[in-house]
Amino acid sequence: MARLTVEYNLALIGFGNVGQGLAEILSKKAPLLREKFDADIRIVAICDLTKGSIADADGFDPQALLDHINEKGDLKEFPAPDKGWDARETIENSGANVLVELSFTDLKTGEPALSHMIQALASGMNVSTTNKGPAALHFPKLLELSKTYGGEIGVEGTVMSGTPTLALGMNMLAAAGVTRIQGILNGTTNYILGEMENGADYADALKDAQAKGYAEADPAGDVDGHDAAAKVVILANLVMGQSMTMEDVSCIGISGLTRAQIQSAQSENQRWKLIGTLENVNGQIQGSVRPVKLDATHPLYGVSGAANAITYSTDLLGDITLIGPGAGRIETGYAIIGDILTFPH
Amino acid sequence: MARLTVEYNLALIGFGNVGQGLAEILSKKAPLLREKFDADIRIVAICDLTKGSIADADGFDPQALLDHINEKGDLKEFPAPDKGWDARETIENSGANVLVELSFTDLKTGEPALSHMIQALASGMNVSTTNKGPAALHFPKLLELSKTYGGEIGVEGTVMSGTPTLALGMNMLAAAGVTRIQGILNGTTNYILGEMENGADYADALKDAQAKGYAEADPAGDVDGHDAAAKVVILANLVMGQSMTMEDVSCIGISGLTRAQIQSAQSENQRWKLIGTLENVNGQIQGSVRPVKLDATHPLYGVSGAANAITYSTDLLGDITLIGPGAGRIETGYAIIGDILTFPH
Repeated sequence: MARLTVEYNLALIGFGNVGQGLAEILSKKAPLLREKFDADIRIVAICDLTKGSIADADGFDPQALLDHINEKGDLKEFPAPDKGWDARETIENSGANVLVELSFTDLKTGEPALSHMIQALASGMNVSTTNKGPAALHFPKLLELSKTYGGEIGVEGTVMSGTPTLALGMNMLAAAGVTRIQGILNGTTNYILGEMENGADYADALKDAQAKGYAEADPAGDVDGHDAAAKVVILANLVMGQSMTMEDVSCIGISGLTRAQIQSAQSENQRWKLIGTLENVNGQIQGSVRPVKLDATHPLYGVSGAANAITYSTDLLGDITLIGPGAGRIETGYAIIGDILTFPH
Repeated sequence: MARLTVEYNLALIGFGNVGQGLAEILSKKAPLLREKFDADIRIVAICDLTKGSIADADGFDPQALLDHINEKGDLKEFPAPDKGWDARETIENSGANVLVELSFTDLKTGEPALSHMIQALASGMNVSTTNKGPAALHFPKLLELSKTYGGEIGVEGTVMSGTPTLALGMNMLAAAGVTRIQGILNGTTNYILGEMENGADYADALKDAQAKGYAEADPAGDVDGHDAAAKVVILANLVMGQSMTMEDVSCIGISGLTRAQIQSAQSENQRWKLIGTLENVNGQIQGSVRPVKLDATHPLYGVSGAANAITYSTDLLGDITLIGPGAGRIETGYAIIGDILTFPH
């Protein structure tokens, strides 16, 4: 049987860490993706607010993009037939059939990513994003556009980066009946808690996490639990079929935890972890993020450092736990590959 | 867009624990499978050496099958238009488009399952099995038949029962480049080692595992590591593209481990686990099964009781660990559902 190679022509809005990670994967794995998945994945446009905008319907050499940006710091002088388009023009004119939305995350409005995604979906394009804003705030609307116009929408990278968390929960465990979800969904806080177990106090552990690039300069979204809460909302809506919003998630961060509490737990062979939970309370699925003291027998007890992990409790299979990276440029770039390979062949 | 419901008509060869688990899942989840996956999965034939053989092209009520077998112990008096077919006749005459091969496991020859699967694949049927024999011994041949005649072959249940281990490694991590695999692939031995940590000696722990139904009356395949070795071969060939045989796997079981060794490890915060490994040694992928002393930082350290777990080390994502059930009638039955949902729609 002859197999058809499917062309995925990507327009990237945003070309920071994740976009460059994606380009690096494509530069290394394009032959494998063609051979194993019949997928010819090419970058035909990049639109970045500071690095410039370029487009070429024939596709760019991803390694050349990376070499250029490493040398020059941006893409403004990169040779391309079309230049200077804004996001709207890029989506409209580049001939891409996949929008890869990688602009900055806004957990209040989801913009500007939301508008880009609406435009792309309404023109029948597929969309992949690692941006938690639109996924947590506007998924039902995006899904409706996807159904109306026939483009697919993938958000694998919004939870646990390239670890195939949503694919596991939405597809492979769908028939198993997911009844509860517990997860370590934020690597920064997990790293900080581990350092505090090793004797650091909160302020030093946070500084260390920032120095290692885990925590943002403004760490509030991590340590207050809002980043994890956005992922709880995404899991609720995509895996458990809820219509949850950020306001529905009760959220307590880690900044109130003292080193004394953490060490006292350790002396009882327990560990404090920031756990995102979705569980049935009196017939309703409720979402929360809060520090939880776990026993050594809990499947999330051993998850250390900046790793993320999730336990799906299911009707038919009991507990299924997946542990993997929660961040990283290559790791998050891989999530986009995962999305694209689920798009129609 | 109108969606087509696909009919999967199953012929079950063997109707023991796994077959009955599958029937129980179908009796509970058929509406969900239709609604969510557009899959209409029906049992149209059962052929069991001791319980009898029945066939009905219109499909059986799975709950009626279970009720009958609970009451009578077999299916000989179950009302059906066709009765008494052997396996060959069942595959040929039942009109099934999926063979579900659940006869007994033979790790020397793979028979009789192998012959059933060859017959089905050569007639263009899809095949799902949880039987390690043909999967470990004859997968290349079965895959060739699948490619020649167009039927698919699924063996998810041969490793970690319904935990989607092969789907994760073969599909979702394929582009990530799996470079090493380590797994706790046998629940019986993991349970025994845990009991020995709790103070039991080997003989008592084994007796306990047998009483709980984890270990066979003849426990050799578990404790000598051959069951885990078969899974190592399956993982090598399906996930890592090798052509490995059982003879290629160096295999040491747990019967030589003493309680003193286990407790000495515990005092250093380490645990003995029976680990199946596939790793690159001097440019070649080598497979082994042997007791390994794991540090508390190892992702498989915390996997207790009869659970199974696997760590895929990958090029792009680092380590991805999946923990879930390794046995059970419903859990293994679920693997067949997983296979079927990957068959062409």
